Amino acid sequence: MADRADISALMQDVGKRAKAAAALLAFAPAAAKATALNAAAEAVWARRGEIIAANARDLDFGREKGLTAAMMDRLALDEGRIKGIVDGLRAVAGFADPVGRVMAEWDRPSGLHIKRVRTPLGVIGVIYESRPNVTADAGALALKAGNAVILRGGSESFHSSQAIHACLVEGLRAAGLPEDAIQLVPTRDRAAVTALLQMVEYVDVIVPRGGKGLVGLVQREARVPVFAHLEGIVHVFVDKAADPEKTRRVVLNAKTRRPGICGAAECLLIHQDAAALGQSVIDDLMAAGVTVHAGPGLTGSVAATEDDWGREYLDMDIAAKIVVDVDDAIAHINRYSSHHTEAILTEDDAAAARFFERIDSAILMRNASTQFADGGEFGMGAEIGIATGKLHARGPVGAEQLTSFKYIVTGDGTVRP
Amino acid sequence: MADRADISALMQDVGKRAKAAAALLAFAPAAAKATALNAAAEAVWARRGEIIAANARDLDFGREKGLTAAMMDRLALDEGRIKGIVDGLRAVAGFADPVGRVMAEWDRPSGLHIKRVRTPLGVIGVIYESRPNVTADAGALALKAGNAVILRGGSESFHSSQAIHACLVEGLRAAGLPEDAIQLVPTRDRAAVTALLQMVEYVDVIVPRGGKGLVGLVQREARVPVFAHLEGIVHVFVDKAADPEKTRRVVLNAKTRRPGICGAAECLLIHQDAAALGQSVIDDLMAAGVTVHAGPGLTGSVAATEDDWGREYLDMDIAAKIVVDVDDAIAHINRYSSHHTEAILTEDDAAAARFFERIDSAILMRNASTQFADGGEFGMGAEIGIATGKLHARGPVGAEQLTSFKYIVTGDGTVRP
Repeated sequence: MADRADISALMQDVGKRAKAAAALLAFAPAAAKATALNAAAEAVWARRGEIIAANARDLDFGREKGLTAAMMDRLALDEGRIKGIVDGLRAVAGFADPVGRVMAEWDRPSGLHIKRVRTPLGVIGVIYESRPNVTADAGALALKAGNAVILRGGSESFHSSQAIHACLVEGLRAAGLPEDAIQLVPTRDRAAVTALLQMVEYVDVIVPRGGKGLVGLVQREARVPVFAHLEGIVHVFVDKAADPEKTRRVVLNAKTRRPGICGAAECLLIHQDAAALGQSVIDDLMAAGVTVHAGPGLTGSVAATEDDWGREYLDMDIAAKIVVDVDDAIAHINRYSSHHTEAILTEDDAAAARFFERIDSAILMRNASTQFADGGEFGMGAEIGIATGKLHARGPVGAEQLTSFKYIVTGDGTVRP
Repeated sequence: MADRADISALMQDVGKRAKAAAALLAFAPAAAKATALNAAAEAVWARRGEIIAANARDLDFGREKGLTAAMMDRLALDEGRIKGIVDGLRAVAGFADPVGRVMAEWDRPSGLHIKRVRTPLGVIGVIYESRPNVTADAGALALKAGNAVILRGGSESFHSSQAIHACLVEGLRAAGLPEDAIQLVPTRDRAAVTALLQMVEYVDVIVPRGGKGLVGLVQREARVPVFAHLEGIVHVFVDKAADPEKTRRVVLNAKTRRPGICGAAECLLIHQDAAALGQSVIDDLMAAGVTVHAGPGLTGSVAATEDDWGREYLDMDIAAKIVVDVDDAIAHINRYSSHHTEAILTEDDAAAARFFERIDSAILMRNASTQFADGGEFGMGAEIGIATGKLHARGPVGAEQLTSFKYIVTGDGTVRP
């Protein structure tokens, strides 16, 4: 393992090169960026043998390290998954380019014409765990928005990420864009993460992608701003005016479609006047294999304890509780939520309006599954993650959220009196 | 001076109360906020005698402390300045309310309807120096955007700020809004500032208003995100295609209208083919009493040294330098600018486009005085400051920039396949 000072110098160099690349990317033509991404897609497909061989080395390492089956699965690449990476790169290439877009323009009595125009953010650091596809996804989204990116993958996916990164660089080269636009941290040393989190002079924002351990570490240690969510403690409230059929369908989907994603429901709140419907929803969930941690007045798999409120299971578990009314549901959510996504099932517009107005989460839904909390489903094409902070990016973070803006002001010899 | 632990407990209580008030303000009707601001304006005018008496105590304290004449001037209130505060409050009351505004909405093939809606940011901390009017301005803008605000004025304006704050609270009370929506830190102890900068659990953003010393301190010590600019190192580039008459008018205004504001020009860059025009501009500036720190090939008041590039004079001084072409000007600006505001004087669209594209400052101007870099002049009604960061707020920070957003998603029993 290298010396801390060496790693720090290495990362300073990575940062400096990213900043220089960002200055050039800021005015790179949209066509060049699209060319780079399409060429990268071709390279990934052409070099899939290499990528799979590199992945085999990572899998060996993972086996030695005793990774769980779930982690090994996340790490593994095959032709199908590589096809997914290729399709992802092509999709991002095809998006509308956000940079230079006029967000608003207006005239002033002084004679000035003012435009607010999208610009790249600058340099984005992405820190992720074992999924090697994040290398391509995050690199592509950052580039699309005209940013330079510094990727730091998990040590488990070191060789896979390097192989994919080589294809991205091939794409940049083919388009005549600076190769430093997408850099992969060339060391497994953890000190590189610490350095990256502190480089306020070179890095504009950090996006962590991974579990609570990683995100918590990043949020604690970062001096650079962070777009992240720590947990998705997602609540679904069954109002007294809920439609039974819609409710049963939506809740089952919200929990069981993919119980391990951040948009999966973790807590079911049931209006006291809808207790019978709530119980039938719980019965459906149990029949589907979900362990229901039920509060008083409900029959679940196990009795809920205080610890079940505000808990993120990421598994086939859900908490369930009877509440007095919509305000009681709102109070529970405001106390325990992680401000990611919450849903209300109701046919009552007033109840929905109250729920929307009084809960401050990034995404609020009515009569829809919380599993839709995803950039792709929102029409953003792809996302680099979901943010629960309130500054700049909130909800799914797509290419547009990776931009900033500036004002372009035009006069005609105009002076201020 | 109180104990550090006491101050910390005091500030925790202030923070907790602000957060509770913010939860209520988030859905306060627009009319209630406008009522509060108009009632506050009336109270300020009705209680102007009290305010002027409180200000007299601050002026005595300032004299004892040996404040400079400029600082004493900033601190002083009279009926005219109080009228200005009253007008400011009424103006903000009259703005359109940003909260709840639909920023975008669209339908998805899944059947979902998605809306992006403005919400308040939450709790804003404002740290300022001796100008007591900031108490009213910052309090009003924060409230307009549905935020709770914690104001920490300079110790010099302690009594004036308290008197103005009492009027704001009177306005809140008249409108039935929580009094904790606008709090003034009730101690002069510096430890309160440190506590405020660290309260990530209660404060969403800090806005410092004041000189480099204050802003630098805030940027170094804050764990809470900051909207600020450290300096306004504003450049004006006279291109070879500059119109002489417009150029002379604009440069003179950009420097001399008010040399001490952050939008005042600090460095004049002159295309080598416009050296004669540049010299005549310099002659104008010197005739107007400006000390011109001139580089080679130009005749100024004194010779420029290396230290003059990237320097913020905030006074009747300007640096001047000949550059080879627009790219050389861009390179100089990208090296020395503080990313606040830069201007180009040119009749050449291509040169202007290049300048706009390749410089990443919050505000870029063509043929207009940089003294227009101001929220009021941009049509934002009022500003709490100007931000040079790239996240969330950039350029003038008005009520709209003090908001966040959330997604409202509506389905009809919609589930994700």
